Amino acid sequence: MAVGPATFPDKMHPVAGFKLGTASAGVKTPGRKDLVIMEVCEGSSVAGVFTKNAFCAAPVQICKQHLTQAATRYLVTNTGNANAGTGDEGYADAISVCEAVAKETGCDLAAVLPFSTGVIGEKLPVEKITTAVPAANLALTETGWDDAAEGIMTTDTRIKGSSRQFKYAGKTVTLTGISKGAGMIKPNMATMLAYAATDAQIDSELLNQLLTDAANCSFNRITVDSDTSTNDSCMLVATGKSGLVVSKEEHELYELFSSELNALMQQLAHAIVRDGEGATKFVTITVDSAASQSEALSTAYDIAHSPLVKTALFASDPNWGRILAVVGRVGIEELNLGALEIFLGDVRIVSQGGRDPGYTEEAGQAVMDKEEILIRVVLNRGSFSETVWTTDLSHDYVSINADYRS
Amino acid sequence: MAVGPATFPDKMHPVAGFKLGTASAGVKTPGRKDLVIMEVCEGSSVAGVFTKNAFCAAPVQICKQHLTQAATRYLVTNTGNANAGTGDEGYADAISVCEAVAKETGCDLAAVLPFSTGVIGEKLPVEKITTAVPAANLALTETGWDDAAEGIMTTDTRIKGSSRQFKYAGKTVTLTGISKGAGMIKPNMATMLAYAATDAQIDSELLNQLLTDAANCSFNRITVDSDTSTNDSCMLVATGKSGLVVSKEEHELYELFSSELNALMQQLAHAIVRDGEGATKFVTITVDSAASQSEALSTAYDIAHSPLVKTALFASDPNWGRILAVVGRVGIEELNLGALEIFLGDVRIVSQGGRDPGYTEEAGQAVMDKEEILIRVVLNRGSFSETVWTTDLSHDYVSINADYRS
Repeated sequence: MAVGPATFPDKMHPVAGFKLGTASAGVKTPGRKDLVIMEVCEGSSVAGVFTKNAFCAAPVQICKQHLTQAATRYLVTNTGNANAGTGDEGYADAISVCEAVAKETGCDLAAVLPFSTGVIGEKLPVEKITTAVPAANLALTETGWDDAAEGIMTTDTRIKGSSRQFKYAGKTVTLTGISKGAGMIKPNMATMLAYAATDAQIDSELLNQLLTDAANCSFNRITVDSDTSTNDSCMLVATGKSGLVVSKEEHELYELFSSELNALMQQLAHAIVRDGEGATKFVTITVDSAASQSEALSTAYDIAHSPLVKTALFASDPNWGRILAVVGRVGIEELNLGALEIFLGDVRIVSQGGRDPGYTEEAGQAVMDKEEILIRVVLNRGSFSETVWTTDLSHDYVSINADYRS
Repeated sequence: MAVGPATFPDKMHPVAGFKLGTASAGVKTPGRKDLVIMEVCEGSSVAGVFTKNAFCAAPVQICKQHLTQAATRYLVTNTGNANAGTGDEGYADAISVCEAVAKETGCDLAAVLPFSTGVIGEKLPVEKITTAVPAANLALTETGWDDAAEGIMTTDTRIKGSSRQFKYAGKTVTLTGISKGAGMIKPNMATMLAYAATDAQIDSELLNQLLTDAANCSFNRITVDSDTSTNDSCMLVATGKSGLVVSKEEHELYELFSSELNALMQQLAHAIVRDGEGATKFVTITVDSAASQSEALSTAYDIAHSPLVKTALFASDPNWGRILAVVGRVGIEELNLGALEIFLGDVRIVSQGGRDPGYTEEAGQAVMDKEEILIRVVLNRGSFSETVWTTDLSHDYVSINADYRS
């Protein structure tokens, strides 16, 4: 189950200097594509943002270290096992996987970044993975995006990708990316897993800043079930092969690139929400005219996490009282109930401290019957606005998460 | 569905000076007991704690006002309609109900406290209620607890009550109470609805303090679904008819009474969790040796609210990685992963930053198969401890809340 038509592009534009190779290691399910190696050409910049969960998984710890120690040449990802909560043994296992890639490709250990996703707390089957490394390496190709999108899936029901091009000064810049994730989704500075590459040339410092900004308007604004994963990682590679240099001095190109990158990341993030576990609705929650950014964001997230709001969304029930009850419990100081407005789509459902006089159940029902729903709360106390994206809470969410390990 | 055997006592000891009368007003369902009047004898003290939701319902607003204006003589409760989010009209409607009770009983308007529970945002059917007031008034009796426990139910599947007696200086003190609530349960300074009475004599100021303390170790430590209701109210009446005066000067009696009151309120609060919407598990979550009270409490609540932990509980799946992931995302500063321990019942599942070396899946499974489960997190960073009680997240929770208004 997923919301709306598939959003994976017909054409994933290759990024010169960036190759992807996918193989089956049988980590959890024999024959399933579950190992992806990505090769970054020499001279590339690589940026990453990672989970803020204190129990960040062994591969996340190693990624952070390796990024400071060497120029990255390879990213290796397995699904089926998160290698999280696995202590010192998990750390050694992730290093073993990096070693296998370094040996196979002839690069330094620190030039390899490891990623894992899947069940938490079980030992990584290192040998299965290292055995499949040569096959993934052999498969490396610049047109490997579709296979890789499949190779990083866990409970996802759809592959997720986005690809964009724009022209500047007679040259074409390409941005292409893939993501995965469906549950344990409330990214904090990153998403489950996302990889994007561009052929623009961008120095590492600027690339990190661009990635952080893009994550803050995409992956850091989505939630399926409020749980931040131990393995969230979001990577951005700039190969420089287009011959265009993005820098703050070249203002027009910078703005253009930044806007295209944000759009790419939002598409990848929204694809995760649309494929949220058990999702039947894609819900945009906007809080307008708040007194502060944090007030807007916490109000939006509290609505997005309310089981009562989420089950009403699942039932297509315009039960606006539940939205109002959440706004009331957020803890906004000196909230003026009379000034508050709540909209479902274009329909105003709350004003003057109660049900809007012009509201009809039919109008609310018409909005709720759709697959894509906008909930907009107008606090009328300031100039700050935030938007988050989420899903409903369905029987399938319970089934998927009650059965996942069995 | 509810967890464990019914906990309603065989014998609800009457409290001298406190009567309850129940009738059918047909607010939502014809013939259902949905109107309860309680009569407080002259000279009683009455204390209340109420929801902190900014959208507190009209009856809650009036309760707070009336408590400051007159000695309370009557409490009137309807179910089937919360009279919340109803603006000025809702306020006038609640006053109309109070007026009907005042007229029927010959007391002042401000001596009547109104309570409503049920669906939010729909107009209160005042005439149905006022028409049934004489019947409820005629039914007033000191043995009316059982009927009243039924009369305040909404989605509850069980009546909830507790009754205790203790002797002091040759006299018997009685404490008896009822509660209701199953969904939209994360009380903040009070519960959905709870009413308790004692025949001890206690001045209003002390009664308020005793009630606040009792709520903080009972109703303010339970959560079903993290949503704080607009109508939570918890009332405590002291009629004084036992002839015993509880005061801080009489230290031994004070401690005895306080301990009995806390036990009563915990039983009423636990009854709400056991009857939580769709609940199949009764879960105690204790966080020990935290650096502060708020750190212990927020960690416990975050575990209690995690949909992934709750669905694992529903599946009786010892998926300890999900608990560990929550502890990691709470945001505890400088958390020492190596010192952390997590227990399921008596079984240590996490130590030294990963799965406990002695842990076996069988041992974890044996704990999770039970209906009553203890999750204990030991942070080993200070001396503060907190306990909250919650439920699992089941298919029935989704069904109940997706169907509630239809």
